Amino acid sequence: MASYLTAVPVLLLLAAVPICETGRVLVFPVDGSHWLNMQILVEALHSRGHNITVLRSSTSWYVKEHSPFYTSITIQQRHHESIESQEFMTAFLKRSIEIQRNKGSPFAFIAFFKNFFNCMELNHMAIGNLANNIFENKTVMQQLQEAQYDVVLTDPIFPLGVILAHYLKLPLVLNVRWLPIGEAHFALAPSPLSYIPQVLSHYSDKMSFWQRLGNVFYQTVFSYMYKFIVYPQYRGVLERYFGPDVDLLTLIQGADIWLMRMDFVFEFPRPTMPNAVYMGGLQCRNPNPLPPELTDFVQSSGEHGIVIMSLGTLLGELDPETSEIIASAFARLPQKVIWRHLGDQPSTLGNNTLLVKWLPQADLLGHPKTRAFVTHGGTNGLYEAICHGVPVLGLPLIFDQIDNMVRLEARGAAKALDVTNLDVESLTQALNDILDNTQPYRENMQRLSRLHRDRPIKPLDNAIFWIEFVIRHKGASHLRTESYRMPWYEYHNLDVIMFLLGCAMTFFVLIWFSCKFVWRAIKKNQKSKLE
Amino acid sequence: MASYLTAVPVLLLLAAVPICETGRVLVFPVDGSHWLNMQILVEALHSRGHNITVLRSSTSWYVKEHSPFYTSITIQQRHHESIESQEFMTAFLKRSIEIQRNKGSPFAFIAFFKNFFNCMELNHMAIGNLANNIFENKTVMQQLQEAQYDVVLTDPIFPLGVILAHYLKLPLVLNVRWLPIGEAHFALAPSPLSYIPQVLSHYSDKMSFWQRLGNVFYQTVFSYMYKFIVYPQYRGVLERYFGPDVDLLTLIQGADIWLMRMDFVFEFPRPTMPNAVYMGGLQCRNPNPLPPELTDFVQSSGEHGIVIMSLGTLLGELDPETSEIIASAFARLPQKVIWRHLGDQPSTLGNNTLLVKWLPQADLLGHPKTRAFVTHGGTNGLYEAICHGVPVLGLPLIFDQIDNMVRLEARGAAKALDVTNLDVESLTQALNDILDNTQPYRENMQRLSRLHRDRPIKPLDNAIFWIEFVIRHKGASHLRTESYRMPWYEYHNLDVIMFLLGCAMTFFVLIWFSCKFVWRAIKKNQKSKLE
Repeated sequence: MASYLTAVPVLLLLAAVPICETGRVLVFPVDGSHWLNMQILVEALHSRGHNITVLRSSTSWYVKEHSPFYTSITIQQRHHESIESQEFMTAFLKRSIEIQRNKGSPFAFIAFFKNFFNCMELNHMAIGNLANNIFENKTVMQQLQEAQYDVVLTDPIFPLGVILAHYLKLPLVLNVRWLPIGEAHFALAPSPLSYIPQVLSHYSDKMSFWQRLGNVFYQTVFSYMYKFIVYPQYRGVLERYFGPDVDLLTLIQGADIWLMRMDFVFEFPRPTMPNAVYMGGLQCRNPNPLPPELTDFVQSSGEHGIVIMSLGTLLGELDPETSEIIASAFARLPQKVIWRHLGDQPSTLGNNTLLVKWLPQADLLGHPKTRAFVTHGGTNGLYEAICHGVPVLGLPLIFDQIDNMVRLEARGAAKALDVTNLDVESLTQALNDILDNTQPYRENMQRLSRLHRDRPIKPLDNAIFWIEFVIRHKGASHLRTESYRMPWYEYHNLDVIMFLLGCAMTFFVLIWFSCKFVWRAIKKNQKSKLE
Repeated sequence: MASYLTAVPVLLLLAAVPICETGRVLVFPVDGSHWLNMQILVEALHSRGHNITVLRSSTSWYVKEHSPFYTSITIQQRHHESIESQEFMTAFLKRSIEIQRNKGSPFAFIAFFKNFFNCMELNHMAIGNLANNIFENKTVMQQLQEAQYDVVLTDPIFPLGVILAHYLKLPLVLNVRWLPIGEAHFALAPSPLSYIPQVLSHYSDKMSFWQRLGNVFYQTVFSYMYKFIVYPQYRGVLERYFGPDVDLLTLIQGADIWLMRMDFVFEFPRPTMPNAVYMGGLQCRNPNPLPPELTDFVQSSGEHGIVIMSLGTLLGELDPETSEIIASAFARLPQKVIWRHLGDQPSTLGNNTLLVKWLPQADLLGHPKTRAFVTHGGTNGLYEAICHGVPVLGLPLIFDQIDNMVRLEARGAAKALDVTNLDVESLTQALNDILDNTQPYRENMQRLSRLHRDRPIKPLDNAIFWIEFVIRHKGASHLRTESYRMPWYEYHNLDVIMFLLGCAMTFFVLIWFSCKFVWRAIKKNQKSKLE
């Protein structure tokens, strides 16, 4: 069955609508891969005539100072204060690989959380310092106040944009999948831990008793992390500029619209809220033609087609042993392979494998000859694979990557292997399974693709619509419950429950004493009769 | 600010999409005002080329046997078995008015629920009998099985369509606001009773302690009603055709898509689910020109404009005393009034008031001279008022009408009076308030109207898209959580909580005995030293 929506040109609906008013949008993005999808929003907003200002740190890695799409305000930051660097991430990755390799050891679990908490602490410390630098910089603060923005657009995993929006009393739109408390929905909608797995748990929505217990544990760990590791980094700024009793989470929950980088073709279905807008797959587009050197290579693959491998921006360089294993497995395939590889050329590299320093991933995934995608399991790549219906072999390692693969595996559209524990045999077997058309991986992925593309409005158009909605109406408070402001015992009706228990107990005590009284009276009566 | 979406023609998006496949849709509608919105869906589906079969009772009141939009299957039913009649509803209304009038009395509360339960029992008994008649009619069952429908579309307040869909193993789309357990979301998404008012409670989303207690009570009443009044009417059919352990609620929860007759401009924001599609206001359209006799009357109103009054399909005829009071209050207004009135002409009728047996409500509400709408508070009329930004004076009486008015009053766009306790002074005062431009009613309603109309896709187009989505993909199970199949103690993680409490208790008991042991050892030691 044809996908209906591919027939509708991008921004068709919005293009039919006159742009009545353009807005002034203040963006505080998060660096690294998070910038990739924020950039899509920024460029789309720019194309609709809005003025965009991006707030960035002087040490920023991906977010450039000069761009045709936005003007930037750069906050000076010393390099050692900043974690937005390839070196920091490379060191983090090295530790992660080491921990993953020793995962049999009883200390690996503790080492894992220590490494994760350390990463989060340094990140939030840097952002907390950036917050301080901004709030203490009178020129910048005056500039921000005088600019009269219509809306703040931010990724709240680092909540500086949220803090600024509240300080400037501006409507707030989040571009979000993660928060300092874990998966974003946990701060938005009721999230029964019995079927909603917290991130890092690696559980699906069907959990055994022990997994549900584990899920409670992961939720507790994130609450601990928020309270003792994340929040303290912002306490100073919050107390100074908002007063003593302002909770960071409440500020996040006060957002007007949550643009969720999620789609339920990929995520497990779960409770949501009217102000959540799902834009997962906003990067889905028709492929552009390949550059000539790749075209020739791809065409030479014949009926067998090609396999693409890329481990994303962070994990470009693998250790030599792993590279050799992967090269050997690739060499056994009848397919041709295009591999984004930054290290030395493996000695076992086959004639069928082309090493490249960079590849046009979306265009390759959209090529009709592409048969499989070997990836670290970052969401940008996975949504591109879903968009084009290419089955996935995952080599996940950090953050949400394993959880992402769990989601695709639950739908029978992917397989995942432990990248720190690879051997040629099992990798070859997994590749052959994914490439085997008698197995359901390809068909399942293509079904996901059909479901994903069949929607009344494209995710990017929908996201832009709701940002503009917030600009037009100065917020979207009618879509936001204020229940997050209730005391927790009222929210959970604990006072009502206690009252009802009290009533029931009083009732039973009264019955008890009445019975006792009547019993005594009868006994007394009998006694006096006997006497 | 202009509403963007008024510029986009209806079904623009879908019109741009080729109809790849037309489907066969089996509709089981609910009679009365519920048919009005189902009819809109049926006509839109017909205009898109789908084949529609409507299953109806021979005693049906609104759902005609012959229509250009559908073919019908009529199930013979004896009239005394049916409640789908004006007489039944008139009797119910009379009792409701009597109860409402005596609401000071301590028995009124009990009488209210007795009357409501009685109405529900007779309704569900009739539908239960209809279910029996269908399942025992081999010709009809064969016809239904051989027709190979693609989807069942039904209003599940009377769950016969749901039962049929499961029996025929067909995908299921609900057109829904109410269920036998109260407001529909209570069966779909987590619904904290601390801020989500159950229907009939007349509470808003900001509740005092006593209201939260009351809300728990109303929730309990609906659970009782479902279990002891509604479910027994279907038990026979369910046990015979599905086996002993099939719960009706679980069948409803297995629906693919919930087309909710709700919009959060009107409803309080609350948790929802990915398979809920909000189509509240699907009747919103540009007004047609008025018939000539009304045009002259409306034009003659000059700058003061007009007031529209209609109490809906059920409450056409008021008792003479109330009619006199309303006529007197209208006579005092500088506006002209168009009043849909079925009884005798009141003696106090002013020259400014035109009585009509029927009025083109949507077209009158869309007329620029319309200043206020006096209504019983049914949702069809209220969404038309929101669509055209006309402030409302409500005279609610039964079912959800008071709750509906609570929602509009919470937004400052309406006032409500007790129709059983009217006097000329207070009615005149309320009308003057609503009509007074220095008061915020009109401005608030127009703000709601702007928010309501400003959306990426029209509610009707969205509803049709999702019905066709279910036809194309044979369901939408990826949007539906299966958590409703979990045992309740697992869903609420009670086994995990008990396990953790058990561990904690074991821990403390061990500590206690260890301390005791050590303490005894020390004491023994001291004693032996002293000796």
